[in-house]
Amino acid sequence: MNQITFQTIGVIRSPYREKFGTPRQPGLVDARCRLELLPPYNQPDAVRGLDTFSHLWISFIFHQTVGQGWQPLVRPPRLGGNAKVGVFASRSSFRPNPLGLSLVRLERVETDQGIHLLIRGADLVDGTPVLDIKPYIPFVESLPAARGGFVDGPPPRLAVEWSESARQQLAALPGDMSALIENVLAQDPRPAYQNDAQRVYGVWLEHWNIRFQVDGNCVRVLGIDETD
Amino acid sequence: MNQITFQTIGVIRSPYREKFGTPRQPGLVDARCRLELLPPYNQPDAVRGLDTFSHLWISFIFHQTVGQGWQPLVRPPRLGGNAKVGVFASRSSFRPNPLGLSLVRLERVETDQGIHLLIRGADLVDGTPVLDIKPYIPFVESLPAARGGFVDGPPPRLAVEWSESARQQLAALPGDMSALIENVLAQDPRPAYQNDAQRVYGVWLEHWNIRFQVDGNCVRVLGIDETD
Repeated sequence: MNQITFQTIGVIRSPYREKFGTPRQPGLVDARCRLELLPPYNQPDAVRGLDTFSHLWISFIFHQTVGQGWQPLVRPPRLGGNAKVGVFASRSSFRPNPLGLSLVRLERVETDQGIHLLIRGADLVDGTPVLDIKPYIPFVESLPAARGGFVDGPPPRLAVEWSESARQQLAALPGDMSALIENVLAQDPRPAYQNDAQRVYGVWLEHWNIRFQVDGNCVRVLGIDETD
Repeated sequence: MNQITFQTIGVIRSPYREKFGTPRQPGLVDARCRLELLPPYNQPDAVRGLDTFSHLWISFIFHQTVGQGWQPLVRPPRLGGNAKVGVFASRSSFRPNPLGLSLVRLERVETDQGIHLLIRGADLVDGTPVLDIKPYIPFVESLPAARGGFVDGPPPRLAVEWSESARQQLAALPGDMSALIENVLAQDPRPAYQNDAQRVYGVWLEHWNIRFQVDGNCVRVLGIDETD
């Protein structure tokens, strides 16, 4: 058995619109996402009992990098972008099979208009094609004493400050975007090898582009622009 | 993106020859298995640094049931074989995409003749095609307080006793098979709905068929036959 073809069973709706700014591990940012099951998998039967589990595994396709192939060695952001490790010792998207795995918290199962799973903490870009959903089984899969190699704890967080104009733009947005913006920026979305306090970056969240700079351990929000 | 084709990157060598008798979760039986990487993935670079992690995720194909399609509802053994749950609330092999996920302990990486990963605790049948290997990241993936639905702890174990003739056959086998046989049988490999103390079962481990009966909470090893 040399290959297999899988069908997409669902799609992710998330505030993250591109890889830049999407958390590098699940659970780091508690954003709300939605997993929509597609026909013929959108049956209430297929998710019966799912709500007795608090957490789910989502197997998905790295669709935004799927055409870029794989590399035997990758540079994990956690190692400062310089050291290389084997692709199988990383969670990089540049894998032989662009198959992702993300552990998320299940908040609610909605079965009234199609099947929607409301989830928290995903590190998944909007539009991500989903291949499978499995329950998390803590007695098997919770191993607090496991050795985590170079990923031995959450990354350090940056402090977030707002310019006066960005704060005014934030106040004019519908809903409350402040926690999402602050948590995404606190993760330091920059490539690991970049450290230029003058450079202005933009991260795309929902319908907005958030412009920011990073100086030392502090990220400053410069402004918010509508994108679509 | 409605579908995707994945290539097999490796294959499992395991003492389990068929689904019957293979542990229902990883970690329950500490058997040794080997994951052999296939060309062009069998490069030392691709596994560089893997040995700094104690545990790995293996994504694999349920190759022995791949032709049998999927069912929206399944009967998990843990629920006695009567109650049904949604396939996405189970780890059943009868999934829309026959994609498995197993957490194993990494014992050693061998790179001298091809790339072999020596692993422990797998619930994988011999010949299982592997699609991906990822490091286990405890700070993200160890959630001891997660709710595990109907799979809230290890299954009860049966006591194992040996007939005199089976004990003599065991002594004549090369290597020490006793721990593997006892641990596999203690898991109670029978289908959940079967409870016939007279019925003789056979479980295929390596080159031997192990015949046994179950009476109450006790499994009795009747004999060991060579299979190939």
